Amino acid sequence: MERLEEYFKEITWQKEPQNLYNPIYYTLLQGGKRLRPRLVFMSTKLFGGNLTEALHPAAAFEMLHNFTLIHDDIMDNADIRRGQPTVYRQWNGNIAILSGDALATLALQEMLHTNAKSDTVIALSKLLAQTSLEICEGQQWDLDFETQQTVHIEDYIDMIRNKTAVMLAGCLKAGAILSETSVTNQNAIYDFGIYIGLAFQIKDDLLDVYGDDTTFGKKIGGDIRENKKTYPYLRALKDSDNQQKKDLQYYFSSSDFDEKQKFEAVKTIYQNLDIQKKSEQYIDSLVSQALAILQNINCPEQNKQPFRDLAIELSCRTK
Amino acid sequence: MERLEEYFKEITWQKEPQNLYNPIYYTLLQGGKRLRPRLVFMSTKLFGGNLTEALHPAAAFEMLHNFTLIHDDIMDNADIRRGQPTVYRQWNGNIAILSGDALATLALQEMLHTNAKSDTVIALSKLLAQTSLEICEGQQWDLDFETQQTVHIEDYIDMIRNKTAVMLAGCLKAGAILSETSVTNQNAIYDFGIYIGLAFQIKDDLLDVYGDDTTFGKKIGGDIRENKKTYPYLRALKDSDNQQKKDLQYYFSSSDFDEKQKFEAVKTIYQNLDIQKKSEQYIDSLVSQALAILQNINCPEQNKQPFRDLAIELSCRTK
Repeated sequence: MERLEEYFKEITWQKEPQNLYNPIYYTLLQGGKRLRPRLVFMSTKLFGGNLTEALHPAAAFEMLHNFTLIHDDIMDNADIRRGQPTVYRQWNGNIAILSGDALATLALQEMLHTNAKSDTVIALSKLLAQTSLEICEGQQWDLDFETQQTVHIEDYIDMIRNKTAVMLAGCLKAGAILSETSVTNQNAIYDFGIYIGLAFQIKDDLLDVYGDDTTFGKKIGGDIRENKKTYPYLRALKDSDNQQKKDLQYYFSSSDFDEKQKFEAVKTIYQNLDIQKKSEQYIDSLVSQALAILQNINCPEQNKQPFRDLAIELSCRTK
Repeated sequence: MERLEEYFKEITWQKEPQNLYNPIYYTLLQGGKRLRPRLVFMSTKLFGGNLTEALHPAAAFEMLHNFTLIHDDIMDNADIRRGQPTVYRQWNGNIAILSGDALATLALQEMLHTNAKSDTVIALSKLLAQTSLEICEGQQWDLDFETQQTVHIEDYIDMIRNKTAVMLAGCLKAGAILSETSVTNQNAIYDFGIYIGLAFQIKDDLLDVYGDDTTFGKKIGGDIRENKKTYPYLRALKDSDNQQKKDLQYYFSSSDFDEKQKFEAVKTIYQNLDIQKKSEQYIDSLVSQALAILQNINCPEQNKQPFRDLAIELSCRTK
């Protein structure tokens, strides 16, 4: 992982035009969790692949992830990301569109420069493209849900599968492809990634309500302010009585409320419905499904422990 | 080329979410000149490659081109493209960002599915990525020039090289790579593409002043209204006396003028400086350089005629 940080510093040489490349350096060097490259390395290690070569797919997925953040922040009018102004705010919308486009292309270039068999490079590049497309689909569902009257929990799960989980699953599959393990193993580790990805996102939804501004890196309560239909909200709607449903829909129908007051009111309804606990139980069930898949993966048992730790870490995180 | 039109109809099956895919179908099925896929096919034919397989790189470059249009139209606040509302206007900015992102990814998927040797597929994909990145750079220079006091003609040429010419050159090189011709030939046809690409863009600049709304497909005078520093403008600045320079800079310093009056005033200065003729002479010199490169390409002479015709067609077009 240190190698990745060094690598990002190396590739961010001075390149023109600065208004295109500076936002990219700004974003890549901000850090963040580096969860995606970590998954590529972990999976490569699990299946006994070449860790040195994993640097390129790892960097590629981290770049793809950062590209989606730059563009999402425009669409969400987001001010802060990782405790710093978003590219969209620090520069402007046009620069954010364009530097995002360039970063998506750099991700692909990175993947195409993986030093592996040509067929492996093609498989990795197809995986990157498929991941990128599914993320776009997820983001569009997310935008559609904003104006859609009724959103079923199942539709929400499909959306976050695309928007969040496929990238984590893709990172794990990349390590598996690079290691030339069986297609069965490739698909199993992908499915493991889907389940922990769903758990990760629902934990994210919870942190937006119950997290801490300072550790979370973005402002708490943003989803409620923006009337985002997250898992806690949809679960609350499902479990609520008529009055609670009316109240929830009332608060999520406008942006004219006092922000703090709205946040507290929604939180009270959640509390009456035991939403935090229910959401955590759902997260646990997703993690259990992930662990069951892991158990069936054909590889040395002792290699699997970091994946068990990861599943727990992602579902118990505070940031 | 008919095969491409059929192909675009075939691949535009109903896919969800509609707000992501409908703008893509809308754009791809609008037609346009289809210049880029035509170049891929022409070059494949020139070097004796497999025309059936050329369909994928041809479609990929047309998709990449359309992706850049969707995003450029957001950045330029453009209302009309190919005589129809831009995606940005027909839907909205967020949908335009996202469907553009998806289309760029579909372009890559298309390229990766070319049925050729793995090394050829990788070379084609690297070419697509390099082209895409250079186009982003060109677009950023273009945005930078809007607020930059002084723009030298050489800088402008560098900008349109990236923004327009590399895509045409890339299409020609794609046909050459697919045909497995020599690297010397690959680079020569690329350079030919750069020269005709520059000629094509400067012709575009001229059509914005001297073209016809109905045949050109977009509104005439847009560059002047938006204070775009095009070749005619920069050439006029260079050749003007002090008073003309002051007048030009005055008109290009604000958007508060009556649109028609400003257009006529600028056109009068251009006329006094013989800008139309000078620009056309410059276009001719670019075409001559392209033809000189063509002459040195090592392939059957009789195959070259369509390229000579193309160079003339692009530099004398009215739309």
